[in-house]
Amino acid sequence: MSIRIGIVGYGNLSRGVESAITQNEDLSLEAVFTRRDPSGISIRTASAAVVSVDEIEAWQDKIDVLVLGGGSATDLPMQTPKYAELFNVVDSFDTHARIGEHFANVDAAAKKGGKVGIISIGWDPGMFSLFRMVSDAVLPEGKNYTFWGRGVSQGHSDAIRRIEGVKDARQYTVPVKESVDRVREGKNPELTTRAMHTRECYVVAKEGADLAKIEKEIKEMPNYFADYDTTVHFISEEELKRDHAGLPHGGFVLRSGVTGMERENQHIIEYSLKLDSNPEFTGSVIAAYARAAYRMSAEGQTGCKTIFDIAPAYLSAKSADELRHSLL
Amino acid sequence: MSIRIGIVGYGNLSRGVESAITQNEDLSLEAVFTRRDPSGISIRTASAAVVSVDEIEAWQDKIDVLVLGGGSATDLPMQTPKYAELFNVVDSFDTHARIGEHFANVDAAAKKGGKVGIISIGWDPGMFSLFRMVSDAVLPEGKNYTFWGRGVSQGHSDAIRRIEGVKDARQYTVPVKESVDRVREGKNPELTTRAMHTRECYVVAKEGADLAKIEKEIKEMPNYFADYDTTVHFISEEELKRDHAGLPHGGFVLRSGVTGMERENQHIIEYSLKLDSNPEFTGSVIAAYARAAYRMSAEGQTGCKTIFDIAPAYLSAKSADELRHSLL
Repeated sequence: MSIRIGIVGYGNLSRGVESAITQNEDLSLEAVFTRRDPSGISIRTASAAVVSVDEIEAWQDKIDVLVLGGGSATDLPMQTPKYAELFNVVDSFDTHARIGEHFANVDAAAKKGGKVGIISIGWDPGMFSLFRMVSDAVLPEGKNYTFWGRGVSQGHSDAIRRIEGVKDARQYTVPVKESVDRVREGKNPELTTRAMHTRECYVVAKEGADLAKIEKEIKEMPNYFADYDTTVHFISEEELKRDHAGLPHGGFVLRSGVTGMERENQHIIEYSLKLDSNPEFTGSVIAAYARAAYRMSAEGQTGCKTIFDIAPAYLSAKSADELRHSLL
Repeated sequence: MSIRIGIVGYGNLSRGVESAITQNEDLSLEAVFTRRDPSGISIRTASAAVVSVDEIEAWQDKIDVLVLGGGSATDLPMQTPKYAELFNVVDSFDTHARIGEHFANVDAAAKKGGKVGIISIGWDPGMFSLFRMVSDAVLPEGKNYTFWGRGVSQGHSDAIRRIEGVKDARQYTVPVKESVDRVREGKNPELTTRAMHTRECYVVAKEGADLAKIEKEIKEMPNYFADYDTTVHFISEEELKRDHAGLPHGGFVLRSGVTGMERENQHIIEYSLKLDSNPEFTGSVIAAYARAAYRMSAEGQTGCKTIFDIAPAYLSAKSADELRHSLL
């Protein structure tokens, strides 16, 4: 019998989880839960139901793991603790400053309900966190660097769209190659925000909008753009649809560390991702951790877990024996 | 109180573990156990004892984790099961074809003694295995590639030294850049042994030896060199000492996989290592897993574990809270 998955929400990430489930024979999508009118939503998994989130409690014995596809700003801080009391859950909470608080809330709820709640799963936080942590433990004397891109930042794209006169926009985060190369060469540079990434903006302006004003507002926007070298390209709606429809992303985590009685030897560890689709890769990571949530719960574990607390074998559909034989 | 480590043997790997222990405040080296005359061995840790391996049983209550620094051919198949009954142990067993058998032997012994035995720790098997397994679970439809080098292969260097007329030798395994690039570009090539690596040999010949004959013997040696494009350079003993004294190594594991309802999106994951010292990096990985062995044993776990069975948090000296705050 397969592990029965439910998904709350049906945005890009939820659809990424949906397609990932089709790649894992031991997982099956049972239902998508929505705040909207279910009749207005058509999903791609014929066998799965579309249900109002108000009816979710009735699904407790029909769902093994509930994936929360919502956003970190407002959805997950409420939803993950709420549903962790009723279901094993997995979310992709990525508001770094609030992870401690989120962990505590999910942990209390999951323990109360006797469930497992896995938070902050994806690639960063997620795969990148895993490799930062393992590299830090293996080379305790060293320095971590994380570069993102080249890829689309949804948050920065949205920030541009909120500017008056902007019809649509896409923002690419781009690592500064010279800085990456210096880290790869083991030079351990001290890098400012500006030295690590640049920002490329593709903007569709409304009829008769003041382009100079838009460009100035973007480049001076605090937190989002002011600390970066930002370039703004005004393009047509057709160009945006044609050349910027996808959501590619990626990046790399590097650790440079030393060993030896005199710390005379240097080592560089690099983990990199080149992703055609950010939400589909994130959804694939979540699918593997949904499997882990089910197995850990079946063993009687409860409470909130992060990627650091989960033995890798829980992620794979393969048996321990097969893993040792084929991948060790 | 720190975690008390013992090491069996004092070769390159054991010395790598010794220096790694000096980089981890919660670990302390208590003793090195040797089959030779202890008085003939001087180690670099003043506070640690050098003891005959015949007296090792007397150290059961003075050692928390025993690291086995021996080789996979003859030492570890005997030593790891033998000592897993008496101590929590970590080894770097790397004879892939015999891992199943070794696991079973260590598992039985460790369970009998109520200890934890962690096998096949290092970078391959080890970090590379972890990466291969996690990538395989996250992108179930894809292809793995493992490239080694540029680095010194001890086994191949030894094979050359056994040839008549050879005084000393160093063999470098070198990945074929064109093949690596094709994998990085997502072309999923089918690669032969020859297409993945070349072999560079630096050989010091004895006075009056037949160089042509040595070169022919190397290039035609089955398993080691026959299937590779091999280059042989004859150099002086001085050159060998001057230019080839170190034991650098490294390599990269790549996974290329697809996602999407139509499998229309491609993703490339790469994990790479650039190591100045193979034994010191391996020793650093072993030190982190020695910490894990101690903690898992303290929790009452027993039996044989591989890198797949161990939650990452066990590897770090940092608290779970600190890990979530600083590395998630």
